[in-house]
Amino acid sequence: VGRRSSRHDERAFVVEGTVLVAEAVAAGWSLEAQFTAPDTAPVAAPGVPHYQLASGVIERVASTDTPQGVIAVVNMPAGEVALDSVDLVLVVDRLGDPGNLGTVLRSAEAAGLDAVVVTPGSVDRFNPKTVRASAGALFRVPTITADLADVHDAGFRVLGTSSHRGTSHRRVDWSGRVAVIVGNEAHGLPDDTPVDEWITIQHRGRAESLNVAMAATVLCFEAASQRHDLEQRAGEHGADALDPDGDGA
Amino acid sequence: VGRRSSRHDERAFVVEGTVLVAEAVAAGWSLEAQFTAPDTAPVAAPGVPHYQLASGVIERVASTDTPQGVIAVVNMPAGEVALDSVDLVLVVDRLGDPGNLGTVLRSAEAAGLDAVVVTPGSVDRFNPKTVRASAGALFRVPTITADLADVHDAGFRVLGTSSHRGTSHRRVDWSGRVAVIVGNEAHGLPDDTPVDEWITIQHRGRAESLNVAMAATVLCFEAASQRHDLEQRAGEHGADALDPDGDGA
Repeated sequence: VGRRSSRHDERAFVVEGTVLVAEAVAAGWSLEAQFTAPDTAPVAAPGVPHYQLASGVIERVASTDTPQGVIAVVNMPAGEVALDSVDLVLVVDRLGDPGNLGTVLRSAEAAGLDAVVVTPGSVDRFNPKTVRASAGALFRVPTITADLADVHDAGFRVLGTSSHRGTSHRRVDWSGRVAVIVGNEAHGLPDDTPVDEWITIQHRGRAESLNVAMAATVLCFEAASQRHDLEQRAGEHGADALDPDGDGA
Repeated sequence: VGRRSSRHDERAFVVEGTVLVAEAVAAGWSLEAQFTAPDTAPVAAPGVPHYQLASGVIERVASTDTPQGVIAVVNMPAGEVALDSVDLVLVVDRLGDPGNLGTVLRSAEAAGLDAVVVTPGSVDRFNPKTVRASAGALFRVPTITADLADVHDAGFRVLGTSSHRGTSHRRVDWSGRVAVIVGNEAHGLPDDTPVDEWITIQHRGRAESLNVAMAATVLCFEAASQRHDLEQRAGEHGADALDPDGDGA
């Protein structure tokens, strides 16, 4: 399960390290098997076969320079969350770097987005570097495989991120069903990407000074903050309506 | 110059790769010497000694897995920008990870902060991993070595970042002379840190879901955006004052 093709043929991927394996278990992902170094305890996972490897074996199997003594083979989910069922999504279009995808997943989870959409042509979300950079967010934030036409057809207001043009991310309307797209590290989004509005993060210096993971982090938190403010205001009005006496009872 | 102690004894550090060396030169840093692999051209740097290394040597000297054929020994600046001369700074207190410090420098540059203050006990800003993660921002955003008492004494309004308490980063007043502190990856800022106000980035999930580099990115852009808005409004009022007829002439 080291290469993408075999990962997807087997519908399983490798998770390395006690912390990440425990997060997969805690988030309800099903483990195919668990392998440990001689001096390492497995993660508690009832019903999962556990194999202790001979000394030195796990270091040769692991993708990291400093394997932590536990490796799990984790099953990919049988299905995905439907695009129709989510309101605020980040879309990564042909993202190339596994570490960037991991950071994006982490930011999306922290900001409370409903899902991350990964277009075909992006790095595999089950790449070991992605799993590691996500700090376990991969197990908690839903990911959806879809192309940009699917996103458009699902009825989102589609915001395309540009390094140089568009509405400031501070001024754009983040309410309602919104899909915000970030593009490839080297090429960004093509000019003919089907978007409803282009947005940009104003910044100093060169276009490259803000990379895609940083941009996604800023956008996720801007969206979350603006929507939180809107909800609070709506909540205040709602409370008034439910409490016509205004006595808080 | 591979270890921190020898780097600082020599007042010089190593920069690896054509792109980063060219950025150091473009930003006006002085190079002590340049070393290249047999098949690689040096970066244009008038007056800098250039040594071509025998085949296979540069790979053994470089800290990266994939050295790019050019290594420069770069002189540390003789002095630093004074704390009194800057208005908006990010302070990293005992930051431990070189990659995080590099990302923080990159975000600070992109958001247009005046400087980054690094407290004693933090990872060396001239660590090769920091230089690389900063994508050259180290050469362009001023860095200042100072402790938290120095920052306080320099007259900043000091904002301390907490994972769990304080004013929302959206609601805090970012105007005037502001120093915002982010703490160590594992421990954050001590409760007795001398701050004028605690701030927090509201987020979903566990405290660890937002790491220090992501937090710094969000804070830098929030500060920059709010100050930009304030400047624009001040600019409008200023224009009124200078143009009492209101005719734009």
